[in-house]
Amino acid sequence: MIVDGQPLRPLRAEPGRDAVQVIDQRALPHRLVFERLATPEAVHTAIRDMWVRGAPLIGATAAYGLALALREAADDATLQARAAWLKAARPTAVNLMWAIDRLLRVLAPLPPAARAAAAWAEADAIAEEDVAVNAAIGRHALPLLQAIAARRPGPVNVLTHCNAGWLATVDWGTATSPIYQAHAAGVPLHVWVDETRPRNQGASLTAWELGRAGVPHTVVADNAGGHLMQHGRVDLCIVGCDRVTAQGDVCNKIGTYLKALAAHDNGVPFYVAMPTSTLDLTLGDGLREIPIEERSAREVTHLAGRSAAGEVLEVQLTPDGSPAANPAFDVTPARLVTALVTEHGLVAPERSALQRLMEGRR
Amino acid sequence: MIVDGQPLRPLRAEPGRDAVQVIDQRALPHRLVFERLATPEAVHTAIRDMWVRGAPLIGATAAYGLALALREAADDATLQARAAWLKAARPTAVNLMWAIDRLLRVLAPLPPAARAAAAWAEADAIAEEDVAVNAAIGRHALPLLQAIAARRPGPVNVLTHCNAGWLATVDWGTATSPIYQAHAAGVPLHVWVDETRPRNQGASLTAWELGRAGVPHTVVADNAGGHLMQHGRVDLCIVGCDRVTAQGDVCNKIGTYLKALAAHDNGVPFYVAMPTSTLDLTLGDGLREIPIEERSAREVTHLAGRSAAGEVLEVQLTPDGSPAANPAFDVTPARLVTALVTEHGLVAPERSALQRLMEGRR
Repeated sequence: MIVDGQPLRPLRAEPGRDAVQVIDQRALPHRLVFERLATPEAVHTAIRDMWVRGAPLIGATAAYGLALALREAADDATLQARAAWLKAARPTAVNLMWAIDRLLRVLAPLPPAARAAAAWAEADAIAEEDVAVNAAIGRHALPLLQAIAARRPGPVNVLTHCNAGWLATVDWGTATSPIYQAHAAGVPLHVWVDETRPRNQGASLTAWELGRAGVPHTVVADNAGGHLMQHGRVDLCIVGCDRVTAQGDVCNKIGTYLKALAAHDNGVPFYVAMPTSTLDLTLGDGLREIPIEERSAREVTHLAGRSAAGEVLEVQLTPDGSPAANPAFDVTPARLVTALVTEHGLVAPERSALQRLMEGRR
Repeated sequence: MIVDGQPLRPLRAEPGRDAVQVIDQRALPHRLVFERLATPEAVHTAIRDMWVRGAPLIGATAAYGLALALREAADDATLQARAAWLKAARPTAVNLMWAIDRLLRVLAPLPPAARAAAAWAEADAIAEEDVAVNAAIGRHALPLLQAIAARRPGPVNVLTHCNAGWLATVDWGTATSPIYQAHAAGVPLHVWVDETRPRNQGASLTAWELGRAGVPHTVVADNAGGHLMQHGRVDLCIVGCDRVTAQGDVCNKIGTYLKALAAHDNGVPFYVAMPTSTLDLTLGDGLREIPIEERSAREVTHLAGRSAAGEVLEVQLTPDGSPAANPAFDVTPARLVTALVTEHGLVAPERSALQRLMEGRR
């Protein structure tokens, strides 16, 4: 994306193949900070502690992490151990598993001495493919926005949850790709940005992205979306996803399910932008089968923001002694999803349609 | 309620009738601060700026505010003007209208010189009746919790949204009254406390109340409730309300509708604790007819908490230049409500049942 006149990506591979540079997303929206990750441990920490987050970006970053690890040792045992260790950094993101497994398939047949270079090249390929996939998702969803714009005057009101923006990918974003493409095409738009507690990825990342791109938007508490839909103020919801099952159940940021319920109750279309790398055909019933990451209670009880003095600091919201729970994702049953927007086009959230899609790509 | 061994109410009328003392709820959960309100203007500010909040407490506080105003002047024109001015402090809370209208009915026939004293006495009556009403709501809902406890081992898991606790009333709370009564009766309980963005009344007030009363509880982001219900971790939801229409539509804190949708989707009973003073029989379709208060965007973009240094300060969450919207309430259609818990017992959220209830009370 072009930000303040400069092309910007949240992940940049250094030409010398010694390190990657990532945006430390914990500092946004108040500061734009790049971190240089020169060791696999640094990559693991950056993924685990959410300096980088977003399913597609995690996958590409982890691929570079494995490449960095293989510079140190690349025998079969190390390869398997490092792969498993990187996969464990974020248990829910299927792209992480997908990216690491893709590298394993490429690297396992190679002699150890060739693996580090091959891993880096494959990581490059994953990153560039992500850009192309997201651009294609945007192209396929763009007509949905154009159709609404053609139907009546005024901006198309889109609601999105969490950040499935360019910060969550190598470029374009998934849910935001059609938004950026529609904005570029002159479609009048307004985006309702769910704050997305507890980590506030909407209020801090999506709002920052949209503001930098000049897309009209309004931040709302996660509680507000149902009310907005009841009053006809949302034309369409579009969100990203962390994992989609063979029957079309969608695992995404906690709270997505509540918005899907409200969309269904009010006849608002609910789309999920889904790179096919996010599809996990080994799973059927998402509610029963997808493990949900339980993150630190501190993400609920404490919150960072910028003080009047300009300092970014953390404050405690809850009384001393009150515990908190922090399930990071929920599962939206396929019945609440209008369509999955993939890089190959729109797909119904159904087993047969998803199978046909994947068979067609093999 | 007994807090740290002392009886405590959020509203205390001074015996000299010169002022009321209220808990400044903006300082909780970090500090317990009482403010003395000795003028009608102070009462108006305390209601408008939410030092006192919660429909029943607002009604009682406003009644004392009118009594204070009538000490200055009590002619017919002043009475009407002050009444209208106090009603405008919070446009959604029907108890505010109800309390002021009740005073007007009592005061209008009296000579102006008698009005201030009569207003104070009527405010006292409103406050004491609120305590009795809330105690009765708790008695009527207690069997719902006891029945779940009798059915299986382990604590009864209750989810509540916002603060309909004793801080929102003169005592007991509405939604919390059955919780406190069940806890006192030895029913094992655990309460999921919705944070309730943007003002965090759950995380700061309900959690504080429950902690002080020794009721096991866990704070969760507003986004988490649907996931908890999908996984059978909520036995029953109970919330308060700001206004209920003749057909049983419930206006309550923004986000209530989303939890009601999730409860309905998962077969979890959804109860609304409703003092009959909250019923507005002049309204039918809550979605179309209830005006929704739009509060300051700053409540979304900024948030107060306690820093590591122990200082309570406000931090900004959103990027500079990103606007926010802040609808404070939403409407839960009657079809999503299992029952209304009133001081007279459980009532179906239906026009005929509500009419019968109110006719029986006249």
